[in-house]
Amino acid sequence: MRLPELRAAVLEANLELVRRGLVLYTFGNASGIDRAAGLVVIKPSGVDYDQLTPADMVITDLEGRPVEGTLRPSSDLPTHLRLYREFPAVGGVAHTHSNYATAWAQAGRSIPCLGTTHADYFHGPVPVTAPLADQAIAAGYEAETGTAICRALEGLNPDHIPGALVHGHGPFSWGRDPAAAAHHAVILEAIAQMAYQTLVLSGDSAAHAAPLARALHDKHFLRKHGASAYYGQPS
Amino acid sequence: MRLPELRAAVLEANLELVRRGLVLYTFGNASGIDRAAGLVVIKPSGVDYDQLTPADMVITDLEGRPVEGTLRPSSDLPTHLRLYREFPAVGGVAHTHSNYATAWAQAGRSIPCLGTTHADYFHGPVPVTAPLADQAIAAGYEAETGTAICRALEGLNPDHIPGALVHGHGPFSWGRDPAAAAHHAVILEAIAQMAYQTLVLSGDSAAHAAPLARALHDKHFLRKHGASAYYGQPS
Amino acid sequence: MRLPELRAAVLEANLELVRRGLVLYTFGNASGIDRAAGLVVIKPSGVDYDQLTPADMVITDLEGRPVEGTLRPSSDLPTHLRLYREFPAVGGVAHTHSNYATAWAQAGRSIPCLGTTHADYFHGPVPVTAPLADQAIAAGYEAETGTAICRALEGLNPDHIPGALVHGHGPFSWGRDPAAAAHHAVILEAIAQMAYQTLVLSGDSAAHAAPLARALHDKHFLRKHGASAYYGQPS
Amino acid sequence: MRLPELRAAVLEANLELVRRGLVLYTFGNASGIDRAAGLVVIKPSGVDYDQLTPADMVITDLEGRPVEGTLRPSSDLPTHLRLYREFPAVGGVAHTHSNYATAWAQAGRSIPCLGTTHADYFHGPVPVTAPLADQAIAAGYEAETGTAICRALEGLNPDHIPGALVHGHGPFSWGRDPAAAAHHAVILEAIAQMAYQTLVLSGDSAAHAAPLARALHDKHFLRKHGASAYYGQPS
Repeated sequence: MRLPELRAAVLEANLELVRRGLVLYTFGNASGIDRAAGLVVIKPSGVDYDQLTPADMVITDLEGRPVEGTLRPSSDLPTHLRLYREFPAVGGVAHTHSNYATAWAQAGRSIPCLGTTHADYFHGPVPVTAPLADQAIAAGYEAETGTAICRALEGLNPDHIPGALVHGHGPFSWGRDPAAAAHHAVILEAIAQMAYQTLVLSGDSAAHAAPLARALHDKHFLRKHGASAYYGQPS
Repeated sequence: MRLPELRAAVLEANLELVRRGLVLYTFGNASGIDRAAGLVVIKPSGVDYDQLTPADMVITDLEGRPVEGTLRPSSDLPTHLRLYREFPAVGGVAHTHSNYATAWAQAGRSIPCLGTTHADYFHGPVPVTAPLADQAIAAGYEAETGTAICRALEGLNPDHIPGALVHGHGPFSWGRDPAAAAHHAVILEAIAQMAYQTLVLSGDSAAHAAPLARALHDKHFLRKHGASAYYGQPS
Repeated sequence: MRLPELRAAVLEANLELVRRGLVLYTFGNASGIDRAAGLVVIKPSGVDYDQLTPADMVITDLEGRPVEGTLRPSSDLPTHLRLYREFPAVGGVAHTHSNYATAWAQAGRSIPCLGTTHADYFHGPVPVTAPLADQAIAAGYEAETGTAICRALEGLNPDHIPGALVHGHGPFSWGRDPAAAAHHAVILEAIAQMAYQTLVLSGDSAAHAAPLARALHDKHFLRKHGASAYYGQPS
Repeated sequence: MRLPELRAAVLEANLELVRRGLVLYTFGNASGIDRAAGLVVIKPSGVDYDQLTPADMVITDLEGRPVEGTLRPSSDLPTHLRLYREFPAVGGVAHTHSNYATAWAQAGRSIPCLGTTHADYFHGPVPVTAPLADQAIAAGYEAETGTAICRALEGLNPDHIPGALVHGHGPFSWGRDPAAAAHHAVILEAIAQMAYQTLVLSGDSAAHAAPLARALHDKHFLRKHGASAYYGQPS
């Protein structure tokens, strides 16, 4: 996606997070990247959503150097940049403190795949990062947060695992464009809530909730993704 | 119900699922059948609800062969068809991933009748299907899902048990027409939520929540259904 | 309160239950009594709320004999009548299947007073009835439900305990007029939710949540009720 | 802040509590102080929010003596006054019975810092007061409530811990002005909910949920507060 289309798409993705109830006040941010130009568009930090226009979006290069815009970018920008550098197919990133996904992050637990709603979007558990070392917190905290996400994704395909939980913090998600990143944030909150309720119904220990059978997990993921997908309309 | 009345009724049932908060994005579908013509009307797959018109509904025969409409039908169509073939009195089917009903399905548990709200609509527990065998997932997954529901209903009257949980997946419900199917989806979510809360209040084990006494269960079901019903206005 | 003022007040109380999210479809009813005339006004059974007008309200005497209105009254009318006969100061009654209060009723547990919100309105635990005997269910079920509530209130002042839980069913509440009865239904749902959450935070056993100290309970109830009340504006 | 600007700000803070769903009926109050004049502006007691205008706000001195307004002030006024006298930098106070924060208060538990959302606003656990002694309840209950809060804050910086839970009652929060006090009430409810869910996910005992690492807690608090803050726009 190219500027200025990307400005509008990034604003729209941020507003989608608000409309879906994932964001309280300004606790969230979504960004997008113009791969050809090597430019990232992100929400400014701490500005009320109802005042934002596409022109308020902040544009930086992949090192976070300001290119356009007078406002300060979201303080989580270095996390987004780290993900764009690591995952070349990613075109949008979103971050929220949505209730249930954040509770899983705070509990330091990955979300096991307990049903087909999860399997439709994540081809495996939603990973949680390791806690950051004190040194990583002290120096380049936000970039180190991105590094922790990349480590949690090692050996996994980010197109098939479009989100992760940052330990003690909350969810990050991504997709081919800003709208897909926000969409995955909404899905992640829904599966986090249903997994929470499933654990409660399965007794006092998480071990009682059985993961979805592998064949069913694959079936649901693959009827929506890849060459043999048959969900939705032909594109 | 006959076409084209059925087209409008199916669209309306799908929209009712959205209005009641049972459906996130396009995770749900409702259908109806014209028994005289042997034709089924169902929502197209993966199309935004706010764009749908009666003309977008897809019409197939009971084998799923397209009769009218250029859009691809909901990928769960074979599950609906299986239910229409098995249950001749059913005129509408609905499927959602509503939060609490899905959590019960993910926990692989039937919903015991713990109160009169449940008894008003379901004359017994809400059954859960057995998990599908890998072979059933590989060949004709959606039709096999319907078969699993039919097996879970064996020996039960589908008019008295107007819904079931698909193991690891979510609820399906049905009724005499699409509106009744959607209505039962809403009821099923409400009783799933109250049963969840009842279990939590009853301690850490589901065994602690006592099922509703048989006489009370019958009383509530029969004051709403059958020859001696006295709830609502005389029809 | 006198007819026709009471017709409008009863409709308004029913609508308040809907606006506050206590009622799904037509699962709820509120009534009022004109003590001078000995007439009760109640919602008709199973009619959509958005179609109701004051003229649709059903009027009966204290034995439930129809006096005005062509619609069938709420099937719970005999429960309301039993409460009006037993509690002479009560001017309105409400019944809902609100989520948390119903969960407590389904768990067969009274709601202990765990905080000042409860103490502001209920001068003691919210009682739960004994389960109905099969014989009581078979003969005059709805009147027997009222009798069970009266028994649960034995030795208590209904002005100080403006509601109760019917075992396996849901809450009934009352007050000096229909608006107060509906108000107490809303309060009862709120305290049921907070008590539920308090129990979860207090560990896996309800015994871990300590009831509010007696002095604090009295203080809060008495600053809102009785001769020394100082909450709100002087009347 | 000076009168009459403060009247409008106090009304607005009260309405913000309603808009955010923290207040049922009239269960809540927010106030502000004009330090130069030594005057406190607070919501009147028990008046419907949709009828309130800035002119209805009640003005008292720091001893609670009425200065302007014919309505009775919120019955919690003495609690607010106690906080204004103890904490000279506080310009606004808010009190609600919001669901999750009240559940923690009812459970008599402080809220441990389990994640960065909490760390962004509270530089340590949210403290809970000791239960009031019967004598304190009998004489000057509302002022004693304020004293209990001050004791719970002993040794802490009220700018860094902008709220507390009153045992068996509910949350109080504060800030540099009425809007900040209401903002902190909203934040407190959100972190109370996420901490609740985190405990449930961490097993049946609260001891299983590990507090956020000190370095991460400091990092988040200090990137939003103090000399090195870099969240939001430069002021």
